[in-house]
Amino acid sequence: MSILVVGSVAFDSIATPFGQVEEVLGGSASYFSTAASFFTDVNLVAVVGEDFPREHIDYLNSRNIDLSGLQQSSGKTFRWKGRYDYNLNEAHTLETHLNVFEAFQPDIPDHYRNAEYVFLANIDPELQLDVLNQVSNPKLVACDTMNFWIAGKRHELIRTLAKVDILVINEAEVRQLADEPNLMKAAEIVRGFGPQTLVVKRGEYGVLMFGEGSIFSAPAYPLEEVFDPTGAGDTFAGGFVGYLAATRNLDEHNLRKAIVFGTVMASFTVEKFSLDRLKELDYNEIADRYRKIKLLTDFADIE
Amino acid sequence: MSILVVGSVAFDSIATPFGQVEEVLGGSASYFSTAASFFTDVNLVAVVGEDFPREHIDYLNSRNIDLSGLQQSSGKTFRWKGRYDYNLNEAHTLETHLNVFEAFQPDIPDHYRNAEYVFLANIDPELQLDVLNQVSNPKLVACDTMNFWIAGKRHELIRTLAKVDILVINEAEVRQLADEPNLMKAAEIVRGFGPQTLVVKRGEYGVLMFGEGSIFSAPAYPLEEVFDPTGAGDTFAGGFVGYLAATRNLDEHNLRKAIVFGTVMASFTVEKFSLDRLKELDYNEIADRYRKIKLLTDFADIE
Repeated sequence: MSILVVGSVAFDSIATPFGQVEEVLGGSASYFSTAASFFTDVNLVAVVGEDFPREHIDYLNSRNIDLSGLQQSSGKTFRWKGRYDYNLNEAHTLETHLNVFEAFQPDIPDHYRNAEYVFLANIDPELQLDVLNQVSNPKLVACDTMNFWIAGKRHELIRTLAKVDILVINEAEVRQLADEPNLMKAAEIVRGFGPQTLVVKRGEYGVLMFGEGSIFSAPAYPLEEVFDPTGAGDTFAGGFVGYLAATRNLDEHNLRKAIVFGTVMASFTVEKFSLDRLKELDYNEIADRYRKIKLLTDFADIE
Repeated sequence: MSILVVGSVAFDSIATPFGQVEEVLGGSASYFSTAASFFTDVNLVAVVGEDFPREHIDYLNSRNIDLSGLQQSSGKTFRWKGRYDYNLNEAHTLETHLNVFEAFQPDIPDHYRNAEYVFLANIDPELQLDVLNQVSNPKLVACDTMNFWIAGKRHELIRTLAKVDILVINEAEVRQLADEPNLMKAAEIVRGFGPQTLVVKRGEYGVLMFGEGSIFSAPAYPLEEVFDPTGAGDTFAGGFVGYLAATRNLDEHNLRKAIVFGTVMASFTVEKFSLDRLKELDYNEIADRYRKIKLLTDFADIE
């Protein structure tokens, strides 16, 4: 079953302690859809400028990502420039040029509108709601957001969350959205806004998933070389929702497996810049790393 | 099999966002030995002043903790005063009065000297080595340390670590000791100093255990009320080493169970000030929380 994703496609310029790159392919929708494409087909909605090269279109097409919804507007593609120190958990934004993304109005192609699985990447919550108004009857709506919208469009965000099944955000944002320092309490408050499942991203500390009466804790995959964390969260979401859409099963058991697949996908993305590691990835590597996370967390029942 | 623990017994004055207490029972050896006493007998070596009340002696004795090695010196007991903000991961020290602890020279009673399980709590690494020179042929030596010794007595610490089987320290200290920001690489460097097993405490993010060719990740137990984190690390070590000593089994399988028991014990300590929660704890509660951590982390194998 294919997934509809609405988000950004961008050029990133990134410096980490291990190297730097200029204007490589980035953006939430790029990472999400590439990761999800290992599990299922993806229908992408985003906007790029006239400067967006054929090479990236060809790559995304090669991953069975439908680009009918990729608008090409006059102007330049969204650009982000950032830097990471040795504490790779924190990105320092140096420049943001929204360019054509500033006037982005998601227009969902007709053949996307019966999407059963929808991922609303981190965009203006009003646009997220607008997307939901254009799809008929999705089986699952997952969404991301960020501190900028929590602070600046809180009311609109909460209105969108009422229509969301799974919210995927980072730990500090859960606390900010709930206005509650204790994560357990904050999770219940946020679930009260609508999403029955809350997935809390904790960077190198892994993921916590909160459901009705259950919590699941998954570690990050321990890496000797974290080269560039850009896109890890969107890649995680792509693996997570991609696996759910491929298996068409939303029970707790399968949600947990999906979380681990998301974790695995994110662990590959951070090994190289941009989509470089995903471009060379095969399913055997994914399965192998899934098994390693199983070994990493396994311990015996109490007698 | 009983454990020999050498560490501090202190009076703590603590303020958290949820309350405050003055001069309650604290210190690494108090937390460690109380936690370990749920699994096995403990032989304690520490020093207190003339002001140490009978009430605490009676309590520790009631837990089958042998206090033959608790020296009572003229002067006052070690006092620590600290404060926590809503970020309970970080203690702010307001006052430290070492008092009788400043001249502490561990003197191991004869009937402790054939100890098979030894825990060297966070004291001067020269004193830790001195303790090891007083015991005959321990089966397991575990030890803790801190940033103060890593910076100030690095050479002495590394000499001690050569005789240690398991080092239990926090994440920032692993990086500091190895002088390496990547935790995986830092762990291998520290294991190269001697300890074949490295247990990395990450506060609310749980524990990573590094062994030869294996890593184990255990989450912290998620709590709605973390009241006071003081003593969590020493309580963890007490549950961990206590379970190992009780089961007399140091294979990977049992080490992982021991990590989870340590996690469980720490999760109780932080629910109240001082030893208050451990004082009312029973083994059924421990077993119940162990099972909950199993459920928290459980996910299916890949097909």
